[in-house]
Amino acid sequence: MWKEENNRLSKTFKFGNFVEAFGFMTKVALLAEKYNHHPYWTNVYNTVTIELNTHDAGDIVTAKDHDLANKIDKIKV
Amino acid sequence: MWKEENNRLSKTFKFGNFVEAFGFMTKVALLAEKYNHHPYWTNVYNTVTIELNTHDAGDIVTAKDHDLANKIDKIKV
Amino acid sequence: MWKEENNRLSKTFKFGNFVEAFGFMTKVALLAEKYNHHPYWTNVYNTVTIELNTHDAGDIVTAKDHDLANKIDKIKV
Amino acid sequence: MWKEENNRLSKTFKFGNFVEAFGFMTKVALLAEKYNHHPYWTNVYNTVTIELNTHDAGDIVTAKDHDLANKIDKIKV
Repeated sequence: MWKEENNRLSKTFKFGNFVEAFGFMTKVALLAEKYNHHPYWTNVYNTVTIELNTHDAGDIVTAKDHDLANKIDKIKV
Repeated sequence: MWKEENNRLSKTFKFGNFVEAFGFMTKVALLAEKYNHHPYWTNVYNTVTIELNTHDAGDIVTAKDHDLANKIDKIKV
Repeated sequence: MWKEENNRLSKTFKFGNFVEAFGFMTKVALLAEKYNHHPYWTNVYNTVTIELNTHDAGDIVTAKDHDLANKIDKIKV
Repeated sequence: MWKEENNRLSKTFKFGNFVEAFGFMTKVALLAEKYNHHPYWTNVYNTVTIELNTHDAGDIVTAKDHDLANKIDKIKV
């Protein structure tokens, strides 16, 4: 479900409402800070889009991005 | 599952880890602020205990507490 | 500092790091849900960009947007 | 300002309102998960009390607790 193109690994998540969406974002934030790998992400109401690449590698998709994507997919929502 | 005693409505929630517990807390926080009814609550790692009563009614359990308890139970975790 | 153009009221906020940025986002989220007016926003590391308009009014900038912008500016960071 | 007694390092923080208090809690949560050292903490409205000790050392106060206490004190509120 993650799509890799233009040197970005991206996925859009839909929730029932803003409370669910922001609860999910908080879990992603905790992982992002823990693994020191921060997404570019957008939110409006019940929709969260996450884009990952690795700045230190020249803004390309690396194993770090796939790792964080896997961790995000394991978040219980 | 909510227990009412000593003028408090309380419930303990267990999660798989801190990330899940704090994601839940964020959803509860959004509801608490929205309905202007704030819990006394504690957390350690994967455990969250919520206690509700109504300060403006003399620290007793009122319909406001049961309403928030119901809303919290509907949170998807 | 908020810029109004293309039917959007927008502002970019810079912080010292991700922890500060996401702490700010959490405060904005609490206000957004309380006032039932949710931004389109983006974040990467220490930078948060907020865009506001009013969907129910046909995606134009209304008093609701200026109100939320004022409340956001009063958030202590 | 942190008080060490009964094998706990504790401090109470007061804020202007719940939004500020929970914004602070989110920053603390990000640090706690990052350093894998989670507090016992309580909140009601504008007040947050944090208690730290080290479970793996037999629930006594260790350098890990003082480190996290220092990091919490550096959080911008």
